[in-house]
Amino acid sequence: MSTRIMTVAGAQMGPVPRSDPRSRTVARMVDLLRQAHARGCQLVVFPELALTTFFPRWLIEDEEELAEFYEASMPGPETMPLFETARELGIGFHLGYAEIAEDGRFNTAILVDPDGRIVARYRKIHLPGHAENDQAREFQHLEKRYFDVGNLGFRVWDTMGGRIGMLICNDRRWPEAFRVLGLQGVELVLIGYNTPTLNGQTFEPPHLRIHHNLLTMQAGAYQNGTWVVGVAKAGLEDGVHMMGSSAIVTPNGEIAAQASTLDDELIVADCDLDAGAYIKANVFNFAAHRRTEHYRLIVETTGVVPPLGT
Amino acid sequence: MSTRIMTVAGAQMGPVPRSDPRSRTVARMVDLLRQAHARGCQLVVFPELALTTFFPRWLIEDEEELAEFYEASMPGPETMPLFETARELGIGFHLGYAEIAEDGRFNTAILVDPDGRIVARYRKIHLPGHAENDQAREFQHLEKRYFDVGNLGFRVWDTMGGRIGMLICNDRRWPEAFRVLGLQGVELVLIGYNTPTLNGQTFEPPHLRIHHNLLTMQAGAYQNGTWVVGVAKAGLEDGVHMMGSSAIVTPNGEIAAQASTLDDELIVADCDLDAGAYIKANVFNFAAHRRTEHYRLIVETTGVVPPLGT
Repeated sequence: MSTRIMTVAGAQMGPVPRSDPRSRTVARMVDLLRQAHARGCQLVVFPELALTTFFPRWLIEDEEELAEFYEASMPGPETMPLFETARELGIGFHLGYAEIAEDGRFNTAILVDPDGRIVARYRKIHLPGHAENDQAREFQHLEKRYFDVGNLGFRVWDTMGGRIGMLICNDRRWPEAFRVLGLQGVELVLIGYNTPTLNGQTFEPPHLRIHHNLLTMQAGAYQNGTWVVGVAKAGLEDGVHMMGSSAIVTPNGEIAAQASTLDDELIVADCDLDAGAYIKANVFNFAAHRRTEHYRLIVETTGVVPPLGT
Repeated sequence: MSTRIMTVAGAQMGPVPRSDPRSRTVARMVDLLRQAHARGCQLVVFPELALTTFFPRWLIEDEEELAEFYEASMPGPETMPLFETARELGIGFHLGYAEIAEDGRFNTAILVDPDGRIVARYRKIHLPGHAENDQAREFQHLEKRYFDVGNLGFRVWDTMGGRIGMLICNDRRWPEAFRVLGLQGVELVLIGYNTPTLNGQTFEPPHLRIHHNLLTMQAGAYQNGTWVVGVAKAGLEDGVHMMGSSAIVTPNGEIAAQASTLDDELIVADCDLDAGAYIKANVFNFAAHRRTEHYRLIVETTGVVPPLGT
């Protein structure tokens, strides 16, 4: 019987309207921390860009107006209650936010340990969307405008009793991102996301978009023998429907817990961090089975090349 | 309305007992070719090592006895009826077989066009299992003993009106394999497999093993915007239960057709080869979104390295 069980909560959040001050949003998050603690959780995972509305849906040309969405310090005066509550309860948390730093503006996630210390930081690498306003879209997705590509790589940390990595939103669709974490022996991948329920460019059935969300997290989990905790900001936010379906996925790629609302909601699972050990030692024993000499195209080209067989 | 629809049949096969001569097995396959042609198919996909029982389940030390399972020529006298029938019907097919060649012994798949010509060849790269007899297993999985690692790479061919690639069995679990095909713009991936329903080493619920089979093919399809045709040799073969669940998967990762038996059975889908174009141009627009500078670990290490964050 494994003694490496970490009880993890995904703290899905309902919409965070643009008109809400940080204090109101942080109060909701503190409440979720307290609920999670009452349910015996050691770690709470909040969504991507949890502190504000998902602002890349608008073209914002006024720099001062735009700056409102970023955090210049973490913790800052408005986010301090999260750190204080975590320390008080002895509970860790994962938080996504827009970071403004000396080396750029990033879509960032941090991991905070039960002592309230930031022990890990990830800056989103796979920025989706576009950089210029696109009139043809029902709403914008200007992440390539508002953020720099993350410059910290895909890393894993030995911390809080586990081997933990982070991805953000669109990263979860990319097997390369999961694999770089898998190659560091990751046991628990934390992912926040903000994904519209409808495609702003073309009609895609919503069930298909939710299927893609779960499919990529389930595959990433199984193919690396790791737990995955994917947590949404959900519901009708400033006129745009955001998907929920926050899920905790086992190292076998099965869904252990899934959100049933589009609102603030905890999903909880007892994550045995040894549960992926059999997979890692057998079907995905990388040292025994990977054939890197045949993978070179993955790093030698960014885009599509002509078929090699003809 | 796309005019690039290829009607594809997955020709799942029930068990091929060791006692059956090639002629009997080939006759079953010719019958499947004729059924597929009657249903308007242009391409028929047969399983991995379709011509014999799945012999890596036994330790066979006598070289002459072992040689019985390999084909020294393709077509050979016993497989010629497949090529003749294909030519007669004007139908293409994909066939998996054990190949003995000057440069080694391979777990091979070929693609044969409607003129009966071999237009593409793939030799399995991700050989699962082990090389030495393992008494602790209920049955062996000696692919690493009986086959050399494929030496032709993961390639895609412009042929038969489509951009076609091949993987074999365990390859389908590896996102690296799918991605190298995806980076060549693949539209249709053909996969034969022989997968035991039960794990010979440890208890794994059969539903989980089938889940893994479908999950990896569905993720590979979506993440590369390609059709995937996965075809099993199924049923109780020489004492070992082999999973079925042959499936045709759309570029959205949805199952378009799935086998419902463990016997010879055709599954058919009209594959619009343009159906992945939207995915390729948007969410998986590789040129716009991939970040190869952060993928280097994928080729720089075969096995697991220590966490980079600590």
